[in-house]
Amino acid sequence: MEKIAIVGGGLVGGLLSVYLAKRGYEIHVFDWRPDIRKMKIVQGKSINLALSDRGWLGLKMAGIAEQISPVALPMYGRLMHDTKGELTYQPYGKENQAIYSVSRGLLNQSLIHCAADFERVHFHFEHRCTDFNLDDNTLVFQTPDGQNTIGPFARILGTDGAFSAIRNRMMRLDRFEYSQRYLSHGYKELEIPPMPDGSHQLRKDCLHIWPRGEFMMIALPNPDGSFTCTLFMGYDTTPGFNNIQSNEEIISFFSRYFPDIMPLMPELVDDFNNHPTSSLVMVQCAPWHYRDQALILGDAAHAIVPFYGQGMNCGFEDCRVLNELLDQYNDDWDVVMKEFFRIRKPAADAILELALRNYIEMRDKTADPSFLLQKKIEAAFSAKHPDLWNPLYSQVTFSHIPYNEALDNGNRQEDIMKGIMAMPEIESKWNSPEIEKIILDKIKS
Amino acid sequence: MEKIAIVGGGLVGGLLSVYLAKRGYEIHVFDWRPDIRKMKIVQGKSINLALSDRGWLGLKMAGIAEQISPVALPMYGRLMHDTKGELTYQPYGKENQAIYSVSRGLLNQSLIHCAADFERVHFHFEHRCTDFNLDDNTLVFQTPDGQNTIGPFARILGTDGAFSAIRNRMMRLDRFEYSQRYLSHGYKELEIPPMPDGSHQLRKDCLHIWPRGEFMMIALPNPDGSFTCTLFMGYDTTPGFNNIQSNEEIISFFSRYFPDIMPLMPELVDDFNNHPTSSLVMVQCAPWHYRDQALILGDAAHAIVPFYGQGMNCGFEDCRVLNELLDQYNDDWDVVMKEFFRIRKPAADAILELALRNYIEMRDKTADPSFLLQKKIEAAFSAKHPDLWNPLYSQVTFSHIPYNEALDNGNRQEDIMKGIMAMPEIESKWNSPEIEKIILDKIKS
Repeated sequence: MEKIAIVGGGLVGGLLSVYLAKRGYEIHVFDWRPDIRKMKIVQGKSINLALSDRGWLGLKMAGIAEQISPVALPMYGRLMHDTKGELTYQPYGKENQAIYSVSRGLLNQSLIHCAADFERVHFHFEHRCTDFNLDDNTLVFQTPDGQNTIGPFARILGTDGAFSAIRNRMMRLDRFEYSQRYLSHGYKELEIPPMPDGSHQLRKDCLHIWPRGEFMMIALPNPDGSFTCTLFMGYDTTPGFNNIQSNEEIISFFSRYFPDIMPLMPELVDDFNNHPTSSLVMVQCAPWHYRDQALILGDAAHAIVPFYGQGMNCGFEDCRVLNELLDQYNDDWDVVMKEFFRIRKPAADAILELALRNYIEMRDKTADPSFLLQKKIEAAFSAKHPDLWNPLYSQVTFSHIPYNEALDNGNRQEDIMKGIMAMPEIESKWNSPEIEKIILDKIKS
Repeated sequence: MEKIAIVGGGLVGGLLSVYLAKRGYEIHVFDWRPDIRKMKIVQGKSINLALSDRGWLGLKMAGIAEQISPVALPMYGRLMHDTKGELTYQPYGKENQAIYSVSRGLLNQSLIHCAADFERVHFHFEHRCTDFNLDDNTLVFQTPDGQNTIGPFARILGTDGAFSAIRNRMMRLDRFEYSQRYLSHGYKELEIPPMPDGSHQLRKDCLHIWPRGEFMMIALPNPDGSFTCTLFMGYDTTPGFNNIQSNEEIISFFSRYFPDIMPLMPELVDDFNNHPTSSLVMVQCAPWHYRDQALILGDAAHAIVPFYGQGMNCGFEDCRVLNELLDQYNDDWDVVMKEFFRIRKPAADAILELALRNYIEMRDKTADPSFLLQKKIEAAFSAKHPDLWNPLYSQVTFSHIPYNEALDNGNRQEDIMKGIMAMPEIESKWNSPEIEKIILDKIKS
C-alpha cells in the first residue's frame, strides 16, 4: 500500500492519520515536538477549544467520537458579565444543543492514542520539517541527531499549522497566491482555579464573556474545576497589552473592567506577567496542492481567528470531506486534491470572514440590548418555521452545510432583520403576528 | 565607517550602493549571479524598461545620470496599432516630455561600473543569500565553494527583488504582514530585428501598443535598431498562452491580431516557442525594516506589475528618498528606517493600484475614441491652466509628488471628467469655453 507522510501531528494531523490508516495506507506522522502522550498538559499556552457539530462529525466518521466525549464539557449558551457583575444569558441554539469545551493538549493526546492503535501508523517525534523536495517527494527534517532526508512518499499531507513548512515550500512555486495578516489585537491566557473541593467557581455549562467594546475576556470550563480565561485586546490601544506594564496597572485594569471575576483569580498578576501575549494570524493561499504529490489541510491551508470557535472544527471537516472524496473517486489522488481545493477553498474563505465578524459581535454587540433582541426575534421565528429560518450561528455551529452557503444565507437574513429592527416600537411588538408576517413575506419575495 | 551589506546587485542595489558609498560607508554588494559586467546582454529575458522623471532624478542626485543617458532612447508618446494597421498617436506629456527606453541588462552594467569606481564598494558575485541571522546581523550565502556566513554588518539592505531572501526571513517574524498575488495574465518577450542598415523598422521615438481588449502587445526601441516586444495575455483565456501551442496556432493568432507587425518578426515562431511565458507577481508587506538592523527596498518591499512603467522608477525613488532621510536625520538609521517605511509604504501601495488600472487602460481603453477624447480634453485644459490641472499620467511620470497624492488627485480628476464625458455632444464642443468653465467650476467647488 502507498506510503503517506503526514507532516504535523497536531489535531488535524492526528485525525487525518486515523482516517487514512482505516483506508489501509502506511502512514508516517512527523512532528517537531516530543511525544505529546508523555507530556504533562500545561495551561497558558493555547486558547481552549470549542468542539461543535462539524468537529464531532469529523470524529464520528473516523469512529473515535466516544473516546473524546469524556474530556468534553457541554456549554449551552453564552453568559455575558457586565462591569457591575450583572449576567445576561443567551442560548446557542435549541434546548439540547451545545458546543463543547476541550483542552487542546488532552484532545491531541487522545487523537494520537487513537492513531497509534493502528499498526500501520508510525510516529516520528522531534522531527522538524525544514524542506520538501518536489522532484522526488522526499522530506528534510531537523532531528536531535542532525539533518535527515526521508522518503520518497506517494503523498505528502501538510497539517503543520499556520506556519507550515510544506506550504512554505509551495509558496516558492510560480503563481502561488499567499497572504498572512495579523489582527491588531492579541491574546493572553489566564486562569480561574477550582474551588478547594474541585468544583467550578462559575457556571460550567456555558461560555462566559466579558464584552467590553474594544476588548473582551472569555472563560471556558475545564474538567478539573478550573476555567481557562482568554483576554483579547489591542496591543497599542488604551487599554492595550503594551500599555499595561506594572503590577499596579494590571490590578487597576482588572478592578475597573472585570471586578466580578478578579477575586477568583489569585494568580492574576503572575499569570499576566508570565504568560505570553500571543498574536492572531490569518492565512489564505491558493492552490492547496502540488500536482497529486502534496496537499495542505487545516491551519496550514487556512488559518483563521478563533472567534467563531471553528478553527479546529473546520480542520476536522477537512479530514471528513477528504475521506469522502477518496471514497467517491476511488483514491484517485489527482482528482481528489483538485476537488478538495475547489470545494474547501470558498468554505475556508467564508469561515474566516465569519470569524472576523464574530469578534465584533462577541466583544461589542453581545452587550447591546438591540442585538440581543434581534437574536431573540430570530430564535422565535426559527422555532415556529425551522424550515424557513436557521439562524446563522446555528448554521455554522450545528449544521454541516458549507460555510460559504451559511455566509450567503446569513447575509440575506441580516438584510431582512435590518428592516425589522428599524421598525418603530419593535421592542414591544417583536413577538407579534405582524412581525412574523413581514418576515415571511420578505423570505418569499 | 559602518559596514553595510546590500543583498542584490540589480538596478536598485546598484544605485543604492553609489548613494551609500558617497556617504562614506563601506559597502558589500552580494549577488547570486556572476559579474554582470562580463556578461553579454541577451534579450528575451525581461521586459524592456521605461525610465521616467522619478528614475532620472534618482540617478541625478547620485551624480550618475550622464553615464546612463547614452543608452536611453526617448519615447514621446504612445502609438496605437489597430488590426488594420491604422495608427493613432497620443503624446505622453508636453512637447519635450518623454519616457526613455532602456535595456535592463545594459543599465545594470552601467550602475555596477559606477559603484565599482568607489574603492569602498566591494562586490561579491555568485553569492546566493539563503538566510539572515537576526541576532548578530550576519548573512548566510551559498557560493560555488559551499556555504559561507559573512558579517556582522551594521546594516543589511535587501534589494533582492520580488523573491527577496531578506524579506523571507523577516516574514517569519511575529506580526509581519505579507501577500504575494499573481495576475491571471503572463507575458512573453519577442523581437523585431533591425533593418539591414541597422535602422529601426518602426518609429523609434514612441512606445508602440497593439491594444486588443483582453490582451495587448507593446514594443520598445533598442539602440541597436531592434525593438523588444512584449505580449501580455491570459494563461487560460481564448486566446491565451495555454491555448496557443502549435506553430500553426502561433501564426494564425498573429495573422489575425497583429497582421501589420508579423512580417517584421522573422523569428516569431521560434521566439514564441523558446522564450518563457513569465508570470506577473505583486508583493505587499509590512513593516519594511527589522529594528535598525535591516531594511528592504525596491521590489523586495513592493513588487508591482509593469503597466505604468514605474517599477524601476519607484525603486530609484526609494534610493533618493532614503538618502534624503539620511541627510535629514544625520544617518540615525533607527529613525530613518521607520520614517522611510512610513513615507514610502502608502506611495508603493498607490503605484501598485495605478499600475493595475493602467493595464486595463493600455490594453483596452487606448483603442476607445471616447477615452482618447477625454485625454485630449484634459490635455487642452491643462495647457491653459497648468496650475489647476496636471493630468494623472504626468503626475506619475513627469513629477515627483508622492504616488499616493497622485492617486488621490487622479481620482478627483476622474470624477470631474465622468461628468464632462456624459454631456451631450461632447464630441463637437469639447474645446469650447463652456466646457472649460464647467471644469473650472468643478475644480473650485
